[in-house]
Amino acid sequence: MTQAWLDTWLDAVARAGLDTPVVLVDVDRVDANIARMAATMRERGVALRPHAKTHKSLEVARRQLAAGAVGLTVATIGEAEVFAAGGIDDLFIAFPVIAGAAKAERLRALAARCRLSVGLDSVEGVEALAAAFRGEAPARVLIEIDSGGARSGVLPEAAGALARRAVDRGLDVRGVFTHAGQGYADPARRSAAADEEVAGLAMAAESLRREGIEPAVVSAGSTPTAVLSARAPVTEERPGTYVLGDRQQTVLAGEPSGFDESVALVVAATVVSHGTRGGFLVDAGAKVLTKDVAPYLAGHGVVLGYPDAVLTRVNDHHGTAEVPAGTARPAIGEVVCIVPNHVCPVVNLVDELVVVSGGRVVDRWPVDARGRNA
Amino acid sequence: MTQAWLDTWLDAVARAGLDTPVVLVDVDRVDANIARMAATMRERGVALRPHAKTHKSLEVARRQLAAGAVGLTVATIGEAEVFAAGGIDDLFIAFPVIAGAAKAERLRALAARCRLSVGLDSVEGVEALAAAFRGEAPARVLIEIDSGGARSGVLPEAAGALARRAVDRGLDVRGVFTHAGQGYADPARRSAAADEEVAGLAMAAESLRREGIEPAVVSAGSTPTAVLSARAPVTEERPGTYVLGDRQQTVLAGEPSGFDESVALVVAATVVSHGTRGGFLVDAGAKVLTKDVAPYLAGHGVVLGYPDAVLTRVNDHHGTAEVPAGTARPAIGEVVCIVPNHVCPVVNLVDELVVVSGGRVVDRWPVDARGRNA
Repeated sequence: MTQAWLDTWLDAVARAGLDTPVVLVDVDRVDANIARMAATMRERGVALRPHAKTHKSLEVARRQLAAGAVGLTVATIGEAEVFAAGGIDDLFIAFPVIAGAAKAERLRALAARCRLSVGLDSVEGVEALAAAFRGEAPARVLIEIDSGGARSGVLPEAAGALARRAVDRGLDVRGVFTHAGQGYADPARRSAAADEEVAGLAMAAESLRREGIEPAVVSAGSTPTAVLSARAPVTEERPGTYVLGDRQQTVLAGEPSGFDESVALVVAATVVSHGTRGGFLVDAGAKVLTKDVAPYLAGHGVVLGYPDAVLTRVNDHHGTAEVPAGTARPAIGEVVCIVPNHVCPVVNLVDELVVVSGGRVVDRWPVDARGRNA
Repeated sequence: MTQAWLDTWLDAVARAGLDTPVVLVDVDRVDANIARMAATMRERGVALRPHAKTHKSLEVARRQLAAGAVGLTVATIGEAEVFAAGGIDDLFIAFPVIAGAAKAERLRALAARCRLSVGLDSVEGVEALAAAFRGEAPARVLIEIDSGGARSGVLPEAAGALARRAVDRGLDVRGVFTHAGQGYADPARRSAAADEEVAGLAMAAESLRREGIEPAVVSAGSTPTAVLSARAPVTEERPGTYVLGDRQQTVLAGEPSGFDESVALVVAATVVSHGTRGGFLVDAGAKVLTKDVAPYLAGHGVVLGYPDAVLTRVNDHHGTAEVPAGTARPAIGEVVCIVPNHVCPVVNLVDELVVVSGGRVVDRWPVDARGRNA
């Protein structure tokens, strides 16, 4: 299977005469990933609001919406602006927004343009948002809880008090949300993380109800846990990475090779040197692969077709691979395809994705929201 | 000192109402860094060819050339194209170039436009470049050697044979070059790395002479070793990071706080949450700080003014800091300035650098060659 898919990518690079490094996306795999997740959520009766920080692409977003997504999740106001300008009319900023300085004005403009919700996890956030909107426009908010990820969010039992404060300040509290980052900790952790997500959200929803606030939205979200936590009281899932796939997700899902049919994106690179130590070097370094390495992964990506090679080091523009003694290494000049460890920051490094299908380049999708961190 | 500089950055953010995260560059510090390195190299009689992959900015490049740099070093053909289009007429691609596919044509176009040299470390590279130029245009090359960095390059004693092959194939061999990546290994390694650079280059130069090829250029290059190895037979130094500075360089130079007057770039971020574990979160994550952490550094950057805070985790858009019990943490909504561990990939994540001087925003410099990996 690996070899057949690898060949279609290599054929596309050769036929189109692409210079490397280049980020390739297989549109058929993207569509299959979109359809599979949409079908699962439809079966469960759970709304799907994919996180667009993975792809940052209007073209991918439109495919997700066409397959039944209720809207998009984004991480920043800048991402929301790009997708709103592209005609996406239902956006949730899943981040503890502090509506200070210019951000207040930008949020008001967004809320006037689309159906906007934002995350809050502090009294300061509530006050800033209330001041920004001054009761003039609908300011929909979801209270973020920490369901074990140890990142942002309040404790589940504290959600009600914060929601009450928000309602009292004129904000429209729609419900609660969480991200179970602990589901990324290791392959054995996914199922428990999903349970923690569900339990935390259930407790938070109860906490709102005790304040007389009925949560319309109870939102969970991460690719490792999305399918596992898509059950009551969860009403919405926000996975992102599933649409492109990567080594990390594949390993977390139980495929230790880091590559299966869910992986829709690879970095094509050229072997530029054999160095002096028996390995090889590629022209893909940290400026395209990033330095994202989960503790359970060895090296900076999977070199397809060379399963024993380990990308032990990436500098800005060099990737250095080691191979065990006696193992074949690619020739200098050969093009190889690398599955990145974590796809989201890789996409954010390029201006466009080169879209392939059946061994040919069929399109180029701009990374519309690349670099929109603020 | 820290507080005074920090205040100038914070004043600039506040006065200009900048949204965070935002990458700030202090132009006075940039100019001082440029002047200091230029003066040192002038005193030593060594040519300075700064590596532009750090800043990717025409504005910074012009300042380096105005201060006496002989030309620029770049990592990719794409970077060379941007700087050539901006009028820089002497460029060295310090990378083992494989002139296949479209790259052959792009290299010929570049060589017709500016004084271009490229790196080579293999017979395959020699053959591809010779085929690309077909003896029609001057193809200047430097042979790369591995002086202990274990990346690209041939062994010093093998440089002559490869140079001979290149000359026989019609290429203009100008000399030898190396990058002592081992100088980044830990603060105690710099001096030995510089010695290894000089010794390796001396051996390589001799190896060329035995083939009857006189090396006009003997080029070393890295910020940790640049000043230490600027001596015969080295004729040229290619440091990059010195112009902006970062935590890693500052620590390598003996300042364990990771911040001194050489640091010209910070990421301004807003504290958006206190989470549930006693620390705090900022809106600067891996998509602006990167995940570059040298083994001798704790966390993902220095939070100025909070020396006990450790940025233990960065996700795409969240930075999570821990603080020791009983230590002050910044308030939600407060803007903090973070010195990144490694500045080069940070610059590559943004479209522009916001330029400050004396507490005011005075300019914006585009990152002209951002994302030009190929």
